[in-house]
Amino acid sequence: MSDTLGLVLFSGTDDKLQAAAVLAAGAAATGKPVHVFLQYWALDAFRAERVGRDHGAAPEAGAEGIAAMAALRVAGQASWLETLSQAKEIGAVTVQACSLSMDLLHLEQEDLDPIVDGVEGVAAFMFEAGDGQIVFI
Amino acid sequence: MSDTLGLVLFSGTDDKLQAAAVLAAGAAATGKPVHVFLQYWALDAFRAERVGRDHGAAPEAGAEGIAAMAALRVAGQASWLETLSQAKEIGAVTVQACSLSMDLLHLEQEDLDPIVDGVEGVAAFMFEAGDGQIVFI
Amino acid sequence: MSDTLGLVLFSGTDDKLQAAAVLAAGAAATGKPVHVFLQYWALDAFRAERVGRDHGAAPEAGAEGIAAMAALRVAGQASWLETLSQAKEIGAVTVQACSLSMDLLHLEQEDLDPIVDGVEGVAAFMFEAGDGQIVFI
Repeated sequence: MSDTLGLVLFSGTDDKLQAAAVLAAGAAATGKPVHVFLQYWALDAFRAERVGRDHGAAPEAGAEGIAAMAALRVAGQASWLETLSQAKEIGAVTVQACSLSMDLLHLEQEDLDPIVDGVEGVAAFMFEAGDGQIVFI
Repeated sequence: MSDTLGLVLFSGTDDKLQAAAVLAAGAAATGKPVHVFLQYWALDAFRAERVGRDHGAAPEAGAEGIAAMAALRVAGQASWLETLSQAKEIGAVTVQACSLSMDLLHLEQEDLDPIVDGVEGVAAFMFEAGDGQIVFI
Repeated sequence: MSDTLGLVLFSGTDDKLQAAAVLAAGAAATGKPVHVFLQYWALDAFRAERVGRDHGAAPEAGAEGIAAMAALRVAGQASWLETLSQAKEIGAVTVQACSLSMDLLHLEQEDLDPIVDGVEGVAAFMFEAGDGQIVFI
């Protein structure tokens, strides 16, 4: 059970979600199972009705950083949702929503994008993560 | 020594501190020893005179997110300090303040909430963490 | 390969970069190889022409936190770049720029501070990280 990557996604801005999706894809490409666990504002970004919206960036991105990200989108770069979908096709990537954050945001699973596989508690996530890597983004 | 969770708390907003406390509790519930290491604005949030204050949330929380967090508090949700206290009762959870951050903020241990067990340097933390998980929040 | 620390630096503010440099130095002091991987706004902070600038702090630092950081600099505290250089002298610390973020920011390696050893993709970073620790800052 130790050779897994647990990705706790907390932040809901496009830059961090893209960084997370790329890490998931990189791990999947090396054959490592990936458990993605969605909390707080990251979970909010996976609402079906909002998933395609602009979710902004970290404050430090500045106008220059935001413009650079927009230019990549115009040039056809895959979105974080597309990159995460590709990671699921490459390897063993599961996406679970944190049950406490579901309560916080008054969400049911049908409110979420279908890339989300289910809802679980933090103890279940920690059990799956075992002694593997845990990365908080 | 590998089967431990090292939690480096850097951020001092209530949303991240709650996420951290829940991870600590989840790890403790699965029998994993947890080493919490308080730096920068997370350490600042553990000042005895400020620990019960509103510490805000990540900028991306927005008005909707802040309102959701406030609603949970009104409904009686445990604060991050209470959740971390419960984690200490469930399992082997220690809370250490980073000595460099103590200097930065001109703090002595008596300035901190009694949940903090002591003060140590980063090399001591890294030694305790061994090859276990390290999560930066 | 498991006994390594992979540090993914995403954030480009001085407080997080200092926390990262201190973790790298602490790991190096305990004999652990460290792979630093620069993405997004952290990579931007390593531009040769900007590396010495004030890169701000997390929004939650507040005026009090910013003043505390400035006071340490005036008192002669090593900058994050100096701390990271010291970590490279102490132990096996490599600093790689993420190729995707290089594209995002239209950078070539000669645009970066010489502390950066090279440019690589995320799959190469994940392969080097193996089953070791991965910390996202």
